[in-house]
Amino acid sequence: MIHSYQKVRRDMQEQPVIALDAMGGDNGPSVVIPGAAESLIRDPQLKFIIFGDKNVVPRWLDRYPSVAEVSEFVHCDIAVRMDEKPSQALRRGRRESSMWRAIDAVKFGKADAAVSAGNTGALMAMAVFNLRTMPGIERPAIAGLWPTNRGESIVLDMGATIGADTTLLVDFAVMGAAMARAVFDQRRPTVGLLNIGVEEVKGLEPVKRAGQILRALDLPLAYHGFVEGNDLGQGIVDVVVTEGFSGNIALKTAEGTARQIGNFLKNAMSRSLRTKIGYLLAKPAFDALKEKLDPTRANGGVFLGLNGLVIKSHGAASSTGFSNAIDLGVNMVKFDLNRKIARDIDTSHQIDNVPDDTSVQKAVST
Amino acid sequence: MIHSYQKVRRDMQEQPVIALDAMGGDNGPSVVIPGAAESLIRDPQLKFIIFGDKNVVPRWLDRYPSVAEVSEFVHCDIAVRMDEKPSQALRRGRRESSMWRAIDAVKFGKADAAVSAGNTGALMAMAVFNLRTMPGIERPAIAGLWPTNRGESIVLDMGATIGADTTLLVDFAVMGAAMARAVFDQRRPTVGLLNIGVEEVKGLEPVKRAGQILRALDLPLAYHGFVEGNDLGQGIVDVVVTEGFSGNIALKTAEGTARQIGNFLKNAMSRSLRTKIGYLLAKPAFDALKEKLDPTRANGGVFLGLNGLVIKSHGAASSTGFSNAIDLGVNMVKFDLNRKIARDIDTSHQIDNVPDDTSVQKAVST
Repeated sequence: MIHSYQKVRRDMQEQPVIALDAMGGDNGPSVVIPGAAESLIRDPQLKFIIFGDKNVVPRWLDRYPSVAEVSEFVHCDIAVRMDEKPSQALRRGRRESSMWRAIDAVKFGKADAAVSAGNTGALMAMAVFNLRTMPGIERPAIAGLWPTNRGESIVLDMGATIGADTTLLVDFAVMGAAMARAVFDQRRPTVGLLNIGVEEVKGLEPVKRAGQILRALDLPLAYHGFVEGNDLGQGIVDVVVTEGFSGNIALKTAEGTARQIGNFLKNAMSRSLRTKIGYLLAKPAFDALKEKLDPTRANGGVFLGLNGLVIKSHGAASSTGFSNAIDLGVNMVKFDLNRKIARDIDTSHQIDNVPDDTSVQKAVST
Repeated sequence: MIHSYQKVRRDMQEQPVIALDAMGGDNGPSVVIPGAAESLIRDPQLKFIIFGDKNVVPRWLDRYPSVAEVSEFVHCDIAVRMDEKPSQALRRGRRESSMWRAIDAVKFGKADAAVSAGNTGALMAMAVFNLRTMPGIERPAIAGLWPTNRGESIVLDMGATIGADTTLLVDFAVMGAAMARAVFDQRRPTVGLLNIGVEEVKGLEPVKRAGQILRALDLPLAYHGFVEGNDLGQGIVDVVVTEGFSGNIALKTAEGTARQIGNFLKNAMSRSLRTKIGYLLAKPAFDALKEKLDPTRANGGVFLGLNGLVIKSHGAASSTGFSNAIDLGVNMVKFDLNRKIARDIDTSHQIDNVPDDTSVQKAVST
């Protein structure tokens, strides 16, 4: 028995099967299929199950025979719209939509991960409804890759679970650290809790308590302490943990600030002939910045804490962006992410053994 | 009685007296006294009471006779340090420090507002301890001016009160709107609640309920609805209201992102001769951006909800930055801000008359 189980795991990890929602995002199959082709160049072992409309997807598969060759195509009558409310999408798209069926493929073990560029709220609602949370985890999180001065950090939660308590913050830390081990290939990723001051006395009670627990327990992560909003872009830790309300506000504030600075510079550059010429000469630098900040290149978010891996690609992703999302999923499948999370969660749930007082906190901190 | 009271008010508003903590900030009197001189040029009616060390402040007053002429100087033995914890500062600096005594001058009606560039935590602790919150207001807020594409918005709370409930959010909206009337000279400023989605169904319960109340009550503000993190930089409302945890994270994330983009551009510009020349030509545009984002020019935060006006100038402020903070205080004194807040709070506390159900919400929304 054990032998055959191990064999199945090995197959899964060596030849991942990825379920693709071909109808998600602003561009549907015109981005999804070329994206799959890009991922195949990097990893020729991949297989796909592609869910979508038979009137459009096969045309794209014809253009990308490398994808067609390793894929199974499944027609779906319904495509979830980008502006659909989660409840609406669930009502209309349950069982029938390409989004639901991609998740279903993960649920029934036909695929190892699902990737969709569709509507985030609908995807999360369907994923939670269909996959349910892992044993011991109450609520899921969306983990994103945040561009930093040093590369990238994982930030979670981006908006799935608002107002998290201590246990959830610890769970998020465990899940984020497991993802960092998969994505950054780090044995003991550094983890920080987002707070409004770096001193131990400041901030929300659940955040302070989560800090005590992360310090005390023996988990495969290096707890760094508190980090603040301005530390996000510095990349001082591999994983930043917060609940979804402040995580979402941080994410959108950063996006908004970047856009604001871009607009301001554009206007300032066009004010005189001198600055216009300067802009043309400095254009390579601006292009580099644009590329760094371009949301169509970002690979979206990973839903953590569910009985199956679901990756949300950015709705406006290019084929390269979508391909990055596939690669992210493949990475985590090969790492066997969810099994590692399940093991770590067992450890982290020994929090009742951590007395809630500062003397212990001081004793264990270094 | 009424006649003499009105006379006192009029004097206060026409000839504001501002208490200055000359020892606050990274630069102390070398910024505070020249800053006062700058404000005097704009408003020659101003008077100051200046608190600080007799070994350094008089020297600066000698250099700025225009300030010396309209000021009373009071020696204080203690200066609160920038790195002191609030509790420490309170213990060491209570009654004796320049910070405490500037607040005291407001408390005892000798000054109409206090301005300090000192340690924010210490200033807030002393202000709350000494002035107490206004009748009907449970907790104070720090309101900041956020640079936007259209000018500036008021954002509160920046970190004084974390985890606010419905009543506090409504109080913050009332106080922020009163400040906007003083600072932006708007009769009915637009007010938005920071949330993680613009739909009425999303987000934290206290935020949703606060939205219902702001829609229903007859207050001197125009309730806009929810705004998201990326709306902050757009300036789509005059006032953005949130509790201090997410407000502080938004503020610091925006600061961090701006710095990150600045660093990235600087590096990208220095990579080739072409981009270096481009940078030199485009320098006026970069200087404009730098000036826009420069924290030393920003005028810090206003403490709202206390029995007296206290303005926090940025610790690294230049004399112009400090002078902006003085002007902000003068503005609010002339507007008689706290009396207007007291009146509006009476109205906003009729929230029990607003039934908590969506039918009412729909009936009053337009």
